[in-house]
Amino acid sequence: MADIEVFSVRNMPQIQPGDPLADLICSALNHGGLKLLDSDVVVVTQKVVSKAEGRLAKLSEIIPSPFALTVASELDKDPRMVEVALREAKRIVRMDKGVLITETHQGFVCANSGVDKSNVEPDQVTLLPLDPDASARRIRERIKQLTGVNVAVVISDTWGRPWRNGLVNFAIGCSGIAPIKNYVGKKDQYGYVLNVTEIAMVDEIAAIAELAMGKLSDIPAVIVRGCEYDPADVGIKELLRAAESDLFR
Amino acid sequence: MADIEVFSVRNMPQIQPGDPLADLICSALNHGGLKLLDSDVVVVTQKVVSKAEGRLAKLSEIIPSPFALTVASELDKDPRMVEVALREAKRIVRMDKGVLITETHQGFVCANSGVDKSNVEPDQVTLLPLDPDASARRIRERIKQLTGVNVAVVISDTWGRPWRNGLVNFAIGCSGIAPIKNYVGKKDQYGYVLNVTEIAMVDEIAAIAELAMGKLSDIPAVIVRGCEYDPADVGIKELLRAAESDLFR
Repeated sequence: MADIEVFSVRNMPQIQPGDPLADLICSALNHGGLKLLDSDVVVVTQKVVSKAEGRLAKLSEIIPSPFALTVASELDKDPRMVEVALREAKRIVRMDKGVLITETHQGFVCANSGVDKSNVEPDQVTLLPLDPDASARRIRERIKQLTGVNVAVVISDTWGRPWRNGLVNFAIGCSGIAPIKNYVGKKDQYGYVLNVTEIAMVDEIAAIAELAMGKLSDIPAVIVRGCEYDPADVGIKELLRAAESDLFR
Repeated sequence: MADIEVFSVRNMPQIQPGDPLADLICSALNHGGLKLLDSDVVVVTQKVVSKAEGRLAKLSEIIPSPFALTVASELDKDPRMVEVALREAKRIVRMDKGVLITETHQGFVCANSGVDKSNVEPDQVTLLPLDPDASARRIRERIKQLTGVNVAVVISDTWGRPWRNGLVNFAIGCSGIAPIKNYVGKKDQYGYVLNVTEIAMVDEIAAIAELAMGKLSDIPAVIVRGCEYDPADVGIKELLRAAESDLFR
């Protein structure tokens, strides 16, 4: 038997602002004959969470500031996209070579403040949820209400990283699961004390989910079964490195 | 049925230099009653690959250079560990706050050149395989010989990253699988052309594997079943961002 299993949540409708995401996920699971189990992790894409929460902007309604115009010209980007990214940012970490890396109000460091125009209506872009942990908590609590099952919820987004080509999924919010699995102070089989082994478990779970979702097949949620995790509801902040211990900010 | 399944390879012996890793994996799978299938991805930890290849150093035999002594003192590290890390590096990317980030001869950017003292005999450290793609290829070809099955092989290691706490598994070598799954030029369901969506699939597969391995339970290999991948044998270099397009080097 497999140690970890990943199930795609199929046949979800297109998500509109105000849609009850947890209800739609449960109904799609029902329809597909998949029963949630305690300790399952439900991974939901940022894209559908942002849509359900109305975290959208219309580019045609955006008037770029003078600074956004300058940045856009330097980076050869759409000034309206840059304007939206700047509104979502508290800091520019790097801007060079056509790339704008910011620190968002939520504390994430990523390209364009996570503003994204794939898989939405033309002229629209999605913004990151204002409080992705709260988004995850609402989904988790509603799933509990509807099914009686205690799941964890992870919100995932697809980002680049330094030094490596290609994007991977990261966790941007979580509820019912501690982001980090902690091996600090435990001993390995040779008796060597592992003094820095903290595993960013929610990022690994998000990465799995991406593999099952694909980018074009319209799978906005997956179930990951078999992970051993700590159900502490501490939120994604535990995963964000403090500026004073970061070497790349 | 699950879309992706992950199976731990249990009951592997302790690996010694010269051990036939692919043979030991196949025999452990046989013993556990798990049959490999075409398109399975076999993920093997750097730790056992390095051990099997004799990529080990004894700290008691290392004489630190004057520069290694200085760096060690600046960072409050073991000078012998620093010496080994410098020998494995072609460049120091950052050294500050107790952290030494290097670019290795293989082109990876990581802490301490990937030199690691967990899960080995006291006084020993492991070094990254000299050519992890070649390591992966040897394992893949030997598995094909032994079983007749066409698998892909990914070598994984556990690293930190900027901006986020906690470690995740990355791929450091691969064979029989293209590192990047390419969505460039394809259209999403709204007709928007995804012009930069390249997914670092082997890193996501490595991340899954970590979840199944744990850090203390002595699982040196896992089987990931159900990923759709391109079997091109192009190697991990495709995943390494060129210095001229990197903003954090």
